[in-house]
Amino acid sequence: MVIGILGGGQLGRMLALAGYELGLRFRFLDPSPKAPAGHVGDLVVGDYLDPAAVDRFAAGCEVITYEFENVPVEAVKKLAARLPVYPPVRALEVGQDRIAEKTLFASLGLEVPAFRAVGSSAEVRAAAREIGLPAVLKTRRMGYDGKGQAVIRTEVEMEAAWARIGEHPGGLILEQMVAFERELSVISVRSRSGEMRYYPLIENVHAGGILARSTAPAPRVSAALRARAESAARAVAAHLNYVGVLTLELFQVGERLLVNEMAPRVHNSGHWTIDGSVAGQFENHVRAVAGWPLGSTAMAAESVAMMNLVGHIPDRAAVLEVPGAHLHLYGKSPRPGRKVGHITIAGSTADVKAAEARLATIVQRS
Amino acid sequence: MVIGILGGGQLGRMLALAGYELGLRFRFLDPSPKAPAGHVGDLVVGDYLDPAAVDRFAAGCEVITYEFENVPVEAVKKLAARLPVYPPVRALEVGQDRIAEKTLFASLGLEVPAFRAVGSSAEVRAAAREIGLPAVLKTRRMGYDGKGQAVIRTEVEMEAAWARIGEHPGGLILEQMVAFERELSVISVRSRSGEMRYYPLIENVHAGGILARSTAPAPRVSAALRARAESAARAVAAHLNYVGVLTLELFQVGERLLVNEMAPRVHNSGHWTIDGSVAGQFENHVRAVAGWPLGSTAMAAESVAMMNLVGHIPDRAAVLEVPGAHLHLYGKSPRPGRKVGHITIAGSTADVKAAEARLATIVQRS
Repeated sequence: MVIGILGGGQLGRMLALAGYELGLRFRFLDPSPKAPAGHVGDLVVGDYLDPAAVDRFAAGCEVITYEFENVPVEAVKKLAARLPVYPPVRALEVGQDRIAEKTLFASLGLEVPAFRAVGSSAEVRAAAREIGLPAVLKTRRMGYDGKGQAVIRTEVEMEAAWARIGEHPGGLILEQMVAFERELSVISVRSRSGEMRYYPLIENVHAGGILARSTAPAPRVSAALRARAESAARAVAAHLNYVGVLTLELFQVGERLLVNEMAPRVHNSGHWTIDGSVAGQFENHVRAVAGWPLGSTAMAAESVAMMNLVGHIPDRAAVLEVPGAHLHLYGKSPRPGRKVGHITIAGSTADVKAAEARLATIVQRS
Repeated sequence: MVIGILGGGQLGRMLALAGYELGLRFRFLDPSPKAPAGHVGDLVVGDYLDPAAVDRFAAGCEVITYEFENVPVEAVKKLAARLPVYPPVRALEVGQDRIAEKTLFASLGLEVPAFRAVGSSAEVRAAAREIGLPAVLKTRRMGYDGKGQAVIRTEVEMEAAWARIGEHPGGLILEQMVAFERELSVISVRSRSGEMRYYPLIENVHAGGILARSTAPAPRVSAALRARAESAARAVAAHLNYVGVLTLELFQVGERLLVNEMAPRVHNSGHWTIDGSVAGQFENHVRAVAGWPLGSTAMAAESVAMMNLVGHIPDRAAVLEVPGAHLHLYGKSPRPGRKVGHITIAGSTADVKAAEARLATIVQRS
C-alpha cells in the first residue's frame, strides 16, 4: 500500500519511518525540493494547487493524509473526490481557522478562552472591552510556532499590534490571554471503525513561542483532569468523524481545562512516543489511516522527556553518550528558530530529570 | 553524512531506518532493482564488480559498510582503498569462508566443532573416520539459511551428499555434527575507539535450516556462560580490529560453548533489539560505523521474543491486534523459504509467552 502525504517536513518523515516497518510505502508532495521527507521516500516537488503535480503525487496512492495543516483545503477537496483522505477534509478546514475551531469547541460544551473575530482596529478595541486585557491578537489562519501573534497588555499596545499584523488577509481573532498554570496536550488516535485511544497527558513548555520541552506523563494530573481531556478529544473526534491522530492543546487553570487549539495531525508534543510508548503517534496515525487496528498507547517507561533542538544541532557525540538519550535529527539545515531535531529520554523519573539536566548543558554549549 | 551500504536487503533497510533518526543518509548497491532497501533510500542497481556502478555508489559516501557477507572481497578491497570500510575487509574475508573462520576461532582458544577441509569423496571418507558420524558436509562459501549443507549419518549418505554439493567451486568442509542442547547467539558491537558492548545471550530455534524464533534473554544462562560468550566475541573482534556489530552463533552443550560461525554484520537473531533494547543492533552498527559513541544494549523489557515470517505475510490486522506485537515487514514479495518480515513481542515473560502462542496460530492460519 502506498500512502500519499501532503507535506514533506519532519512529521511526514517520521510517519514514513514508522510506516516502513509495517511494510508500507510513502510518497510526499511538497513545494520544496529540500523537504526532509525526500531523504527517506519519493518526493514529488510541486505546489499543492498545481494539478499536474497533484496527479503525479496521487497516481498509485491508495490513501492520502497530511502532515501540515496549512495545505490548501481546495487541493485536499479535489484529492478527496478520487481517493480516501484521512483525517477528513472538514478537520483540516476547522484546524486552519482559529475562529472555526474555537466555535466548534464551544458548541461541544468545551471551555475555551473568550474570543472575538476582529476586522478593524475599532473592532479590536470593542472586543478588548468585552474580553478584557491582557489579550492576544492572532491571525485567524496560517499561524504556527508563535508566528502571527501579538500580546496586548495596554491600550497603547493595541495600535502597535494592529499595525503589525492587522492587514493579514485571512482576518484576525482577539483572544483572552489566560493566566494558565501550565500548558498540556492530549494526543489521541481514532481508527476508521471509530475506536479511540489516548496517550497520557503531556506537559509542554514553550520558549519564544516554540515548543521547547515536553514531559509525559504530565506530573500531578488527577484522574478527573485526564478524563476531561480525553472526553474533549472524544467529542471533537466524534463530531468530525475523525480518522488518525488528533491533538488538542490545553491550558490548565486549577482543575479547569481550556481548549486552546487543535492540530489535525501528529504533533511535536508527541514525539516522545516514538521511544516512550509501545506504539508511537506516527505508527498509530499510519495504522488508523491504513484502516488497521490501533496499537497500544501505553508508556514503555515510567517517565519520558522530549527536548526540541531549535536553530542548531548540538554535538552529536556528546548527546549520544548520555545513557538512554535518543537523538532524532530531521536532515534539515539549521537556521534561527527552525526545529532541526529532538532528543527523547526515557526511564525512571529521577534518571530522566538527571539526563535532562545534562542534555540541557550539552545543547546550550554546543 | 552519507553511509554507503553494500547490499539492499532487509538488513540494509533496517540499518537505514535506524540511521535516518540520527540524521544520516544512505545509499545502497545491489544487483536487484527490487532490493527492499530501495523503498527507503537511494538504490544504485549494479553488480558489485562493475566499476561504473561502484563509482556511482561511492560518490559522496563518507563511509562504507555491508549488510550481506557474500559481497565479493575484491570489490570491498577496491572501495577500502578510497573510503573507510567497516567492518574491516579482513572480517568479511574470514566470515565468507567456513575454514578460515573456524581456524581463527580455534587459534584464539575458542572451542569449535571438529572440522576438515575436503576436496574429494575420498577425503570426505577419511575426514569422517577422524571426526566420526554424524557429520555435516557444507560448502566452504556462499552458504546461508541452511543452503549448501548435507547431513551425513551413514556411509551410504556420504556418497549422496558428495553427489549433491561436492562439485561446489569454493570447496567443502566436513564438520562434526554436535549434539547440542540449544543454539545461542551473542551480538556485540565495537566502536572505532575499541569500546565493546554486548546484548544479552539469545536462544534461537531453526526450522528447515532457517531461523524461526529467537528469545532474549536466553533462559537459564549462568553468569559464567554469558561471560564466556562475551569473551569469545571480544577475542574475535579485537583480533580483527573490528568496527560495527559482530554476531557469533554458538552451540551450547552443558556449560560448554562451541563457536559455530560468525556474521560480520547485524543478524536476524538480533531483530528483537529494535523494539526490545534501549538502542537496537541497527542503531548501534550505524553509530559504530559513523564513529559515534555506542548506545545502551540494555533490554527495554523483561523478555522479548522474535518470530520470523517466512514464505508468507500473515493477516496484518490480526497480528496488529495482539497487544505489544510489533510487526516488521520488509516490502518483499512472498515466496517459499523467503524471509518477508518478523514480529517482535516485548513484555513480561508470561505476557510474551501468551502473545507468542496467539501469534503462532495467526501466522500458521493466515
